[in-house]
Amino acid sequence: MKALFLDKARSLSLRDDPLPQALGDEDVRIKIVNVGICGSDIHYYLHGRIGGFIVEAPMVLGHEASGIVVEAGRAVGHLKAGDRVCMEPGIPDCRSRQTLLGRYNLDPEVRFWATPPIHGCLRESIVHPANLSFKLPDNVGFEEGALVEPLAIGVHSAKKARIVPGDTALVLGAGTIGLVTALAAVASGCSRVIVADAKREKLDFVRRHYGARIEAFDIASGDLKAHVFAQCPQGVDIVFEASGNLQAIQSTTGFLTPGGRVVLIGMPQEPARIDVVEAQCKEAEFITIFRYANVYERAIKFIASGQIDVKPLVTHRFGFDEAENAFRLAATMPGDAIKIMIRL
Amino acid sequence: MKALFLDKARSLSLRDDPLPQALGDEDVRIKIVNVGICGSDIHYYLHGRIGGFIVEAPMVLGHEASGIVVEAGRAVGHLKAGDRVCMEPGIPDCRSRQTLLGRYNLDPEVRFWATPPIHGCLRESIVHPANLSFKLPDNVGFEEGALVEPLAIGVHSAKKARIVPGDTALVLGAGTIGLVTALAAVASGCSRVIVADAKREKLDFVRRHYGARIEAFDIASGDLKAHVFAQCPQGVDIVFEASGNLQAIQSTTGFLTPGGRVVLIGMPQEPARIDVVEAQCKEAEFITIFRYANVYERAIKFIASGQIDVKPLVTHRFGFDEAENAFRLAATMPGDAIKIMIRL
Amino acid sequence: MKALFLDKARSLSLRDDPLPQALGDEDVRIKIVNVGICGSDIHYYLHGRIGGFIVEAPMVLGHEASGIVVEAGRAVGHLKAGDRVCMEPGIPDCRSRQTLLGRYNLDPEVRFWATPPIHGCLRESIVHPANLSFKLPDNVGFEEGALVEPLAIGVHSAKKARIVPGDTALVLGAGTIGLVTALAAVASGCSRVIVADAKREKLDFVRRHYGARIEAFDIASGDLKAHVFAQCPQGVDIVFEASGNLQAIQSTTGFLTPGGRVVLIGMPQEPARIDVVEAQCKEAEFITIFRYANVYERAIKFIASGQIDVKPLVTHRFGFDEAENAFRLAATMPGDAIKIMIRL
Amino acid sequence: MKALFLDKARSLSLRDDPLPQALGDEDVRIKIVNVGICGSDIHYYLHGRIGGFIVEAPMVLGHEASGIVVEAGRAVGHLKAGDRVCMEPGIPDCRSRQTLLGRYNLDPEVRFWATPPIHGCLRESIVHPANLSFKLPDNVGFEEGALVEPLAIGVHSAKKARIVPGDTALVLGAGTIGLVTALAAVASGCSRVIVADAKREKLDFVRRHYGARIEAFDIASGDLKAHVFAQCPQGVDIVFEASGNLQAIQSTTGFLTPGGRVVLIGMPQEPARIDVVEAQCKEAEFITIFRYANVYERAIKFIASGQIDVKPLVTHRFGFDEAENAFRLAATMPGDAIKIMIRL
Repeated sequence: MKALFLDKARSLSLRDDPLPQALGDEDVRIKIVNVGICGSDIHYYLHGRIGGFIVEAPMVLGHEASGIVVEAGRAVGHLKAGDRVCMEPGIPDCRSRQTLLGRYNLDPEVRFWATPPIHGCLRESIVHPANLSFKLPDNVGFEEGALVEPLAIGVHSAKKARIVPGDTALVLGAGTIGLVTALAAVASGCSRVIVADAKREKLDFVRRHYGARIEAFDIASGDLKAHVFAQCPQGVDIVFEASGNLQAIQSTTGFLTPGGRVVLIGMPQEPARIDVVEAQCKEAEFITIFRYANVYERAIKFIASGQIDVKPLVTHRFGFDEAENAFRLAATMPGDAIKIMIRL
Repeated sequence: MKALFLDKARSLSLRDDPLPQALGDEDVRIKIVNVGICGSDIHYYLHGRIGGFIVEAPMVLGHEASGIVVEAGRAVGHLKAGDRVCMEPGIPDCRSRQTLLGRYNLDPEVRFWATPPIHGCLRESIVHPANLSFKLPDNVGFEEGALVEPLAIGVHSAKKARIVPGDTALVLGAGTIGLVTALAAVASGCSRVIVADAKREKLDFVRRHYGARIEAFDIASGDLKAHVFAQCPQGVDIVFEASGNLQAIQSTTGFLTPGGRVVLIGMPQEPARIDVVEAQCKEAEFITIFRYANVYERAIKFIASGQIDVKPLVTHRFGFDEAENAFRLAATMPGDAIKIMIRL
Repeated sequence: MKALFLDKARSLSLRDDPLPQALGDEDVRIKIVNVGICGSDIHYYLHGRIGGFIVEAPMVLGHEASGIVVEAGRAVGHLKAGDRVCMEPGIPDCRSRQTLLGRYNLDPEVRFWATPPIHGCLRESIVHPANLSFKLPDNVGFEEGALVEPLAIGVHSAKKARIVPGDTALVLGAGTIGLVTALAAVASGCSRVIVADAKREKLDFVRRHYGARIEAFDIASGDLKAHVFAQCPQGVDIVFEASGNLQAIQSTTGFLTPGGRVVLIGMPQEPARIDVVEAQCKEAEFITIFRYANVYERAIKFIASGQIDVKPLVTHRFGFDEAENAFRLAATMPGDAIKIMIRL
Repeated sequence: MKALFLDKARSLSLRDDPLPQALGDEDVRIKIVNVGICGSDIHYYLHGRIGGFIVEAPMVLGHEASGIVVEAGRAVGHLKAGDRVCMEPGIPDCRSRQTLLGRYNLDPEVRFWATPPIHGCLRESIVHPANLSFKLPDNVGFEEGALVEPLAIGVHSAKKARIVPGDTALVLGAGTIGLVTALAAVASGCSRVIVADAKREKLDFVRRHYGARIEAFDIASGDLKAHVFAQCPQGVDIVFEASGNLQAIQSTTGFLTPGGRVVLIGMPQEPARIDVVEAQCKEAEFITIFRYANVYERAIKFIASGQIDVKPLVTHRFGFDEAENAFRLAATMPGDAIKIMIRL
């Protein structure tokens, strides 16, 4: 059994996995099949830390995974060996106050894969709580299964946005999170979704794969505000901010219709200057997002029904023994890369 | 100028329209292009009444209409002569309590086309409040415009259902209202929609035109409850009851997941026996629907974006001078008829 | 250590308690101080069953309790020996789907005190999950602590009713559940609450103890509908049905304003005939209630702040060795009895 | 007939009122009895403008009023001469999109008393739409009627805050708006409300009149954050920001429990620096407030039922011929002044 350890910044090692693997009664043991590389994985790889989360001991990377159940604990009812699954990477204390309230993503004790000191899933086998492991339908592949994790952020954002059927939406940022948010917004009842970015390759990708349902707007070559109000004379009902860019965040209110909502998904590096009075004149609401809760099954159903097609998002593929190359590529952030996928 | 008057049950007359046509400052005068025949039109045609609403004087039928603006009142800003429009048939008192609350459909003073003693729109020209007249985008035709009215019931039902992205839904009844509700449910975020009916022709229609997104189930030849729980092991999140059938209404709770909702759209002829304790064990909620409010623009956007295709619903077409034949056909309720459309 | 066992209908026995008492890491051991007798306890006492729940082996009764922590498990942080507490009597599987969704009351695996075959709390000592044990503030007594359980039903009903500040409410039924619901409705934002019943003693109790905030209406001597519409010309915003009486349930829609809600708390013995069309004309919604979730802390805060005074509800008191007398009295349902409280 | 005109900054004149007074069919003519002075009145008095709203021609001040109907238009049903009323000062276009949506406060065409160029109500008689004039119950006096306007902001804020019964709240700012918000929060279901300010006189006022239900905290002499978390270990559910102070706005997230809400009522003079990531870690939501809609009747009911006592808020009284003195006093903002009331 091998695992991909990050020993310190820019130092990866694929080596024997000595981590404990005791199977509890409510756990399943899973053979990992696919793991997608997330921006946070890249950040730990490059810098050895994200804010106060510091890699102080070797840590297995990866939190976007699918696999096959190889063993189920005695109390597990809904999964058995051979089942194809994807897994939620955040394990809350199920008895906690926030879990009982239905928002286990906000439990301060949550243990999240590949967030120090918790190991991630870039390993051949992992033990995971069965209630956070979700069976994949026959028509959903392993790569799609691994993509449920980023899609879950989009579906959670759409859920929290309180979409009213037919709402119009603007998504700021055409990176992976912007894309899954736009896809989730369309599937969740938005009648028009505009994705705005300055990167031409990202916009071309949107037009090529999702042009029938999502409009791509190049902010480098046009006035987004003028465009939005030409398309939606009262402004849009919802702005999903998925770039984390300060100026983007500060511009959100200006696109809104009276009574509109801003969903803040991107994480900026410093406080944003929000024009409160401008927001008040529209009674705008700002909704903030932290990971997700209770949306994995929903994301899987959207993929299975064909309402959301995540397959085009996988732009590069690597074997497990090439994992370091995958991270080296990811670190260069090539314009044509959306999701880099590792096959174990 | 001619109009189609219902003089009494089964007695229609296409004759000169002497109705007043004064154009107020906030009105538009509209040349009618298409009018769909609704179940209520047929009921008035056959029986001269619906419950306490009795046709005591000749009344123009029709309330599903599209047309062209020929003149706009002095205070009208968003419409001008030549604009293609569809119109909300219910005119509330805009100063009323319910209107200010945002639910003008519940204003007891609402004047609704072709509900005695208010005349309908089967006439060559009509004057209507501009704020209840909605411009059609270039890619939405006149027939689609006339279909916005029934679709509005579906969109309103989907809106009131408080759909969470990825919810599963069961629609009881595959008539026009069942179909527009199923279409609206898919467009509004449901990941799986099953429509159930006993009429094979209706189900075949669903499969032929909407099979990619909506499943049709024949309750005459299978056990719906077993099927629902095979597909959705916890039950569905939402049941839309669109048949008005008493037994269907009484069965709704049984299909639900804990925390699910029933949306009662169909109007039964007598009280329904609801098993309150069965509902309580799931904390089921029952939401009832009366026409619609604030959804016309939303329905138009869903048609314009391609998320809802209402074109297949028009199964029969008649000219204005053949209108009586249209009603005679409608009265026989042929199995292959969904929407009978009159062209003026 | 002693416990009060129901051996079969009408056969109680206060005897040594041989039940296991192992203390888990996340549990607390509690010395019971007060237990209130609930209608379900009386029903089991009289009939040995409620519906399909049958007392097939001796079962300890009681589920409304307060006490003192005598020992805390190793992983317990928020409680320690000496803390005064009250306890939620329903223990869900914390890993279950419904628990993660925030509605653990709907978990089909919930184990609820004094619902066969689960033992209740009429015993000198009990072990309970710490996360379902709530510390009582200094100004909340043990009797009030035991009353948190019935009050929780009222607070849960008020929470689910989606009260808008200033709403008017009608409560049908002035038994314990009707009273706690009325108290919770006032504390939760209703500006006017009318409680209706036919039992004069219950109404006198309301007037004597809560007359400043709750109006009592005697349906035996007046026309409730006429009274409601005289007080609230558009009807009330919310009807809380707390009687379980079929005719009461069937009357609920008639009291509502357009857009109003009915909250069904009482459990009728057979299906109710609901006039769906009457409900649709108002777009009425029906919300059903099953126990409660996430409201214990809220109920305690309302008591501590003085917004809800439950002390008057205790009308009779018995020692533990008089428990059988308490049940005999309760079984006669004297008109002046609200809550019969046992002190251990 | 006289009115109080503001001719330019600091220049008031009580003189004959030549303004048109035509009574429409849906209007009432009202003899004004009481008018409260609002902060915006004082601002116009001192500076002749608020932001882009500039007093370019003599304008009657005042928008918090009560009075007696002296004449009712022909179509008015619910009011007649002799009725005591209070009035909403913002008159929307009832046909507008925002009005139909139920949020007429956001109608860009709203005409609001004493916002240039619309005249206010400091005049002996005024004509007003009947549907924005609300009958006062017998137990609600004229001063209380005039106070419904500021209280409406508090009730609207409480309504938009989506209070769950038993929520805890912190109100930043103990001025008039902070006080009415705190009063509305308690009446609307908050179990604990802390009002924080640095002005000792304001805090003493809270303790003296509302100490049983609202806690006053002096931020000049204590650490508010430490105090809040000592009282509410997870933080408060809601922060109502009623000061408009930039630092206060920027501190709001820090007081919140996970899943909490910030309601931004105060209007700061420049953009606020919001720590988006801090907010995301709690999935905090920010709700902004612009005046109010559909809450006048609710505010009146809270006063009538005794749940909100606004009488103590009137600290100074002047006759109409002393109105200029009232404004001179108001301009000095004495610490013991809450509401200065003019009696016509």
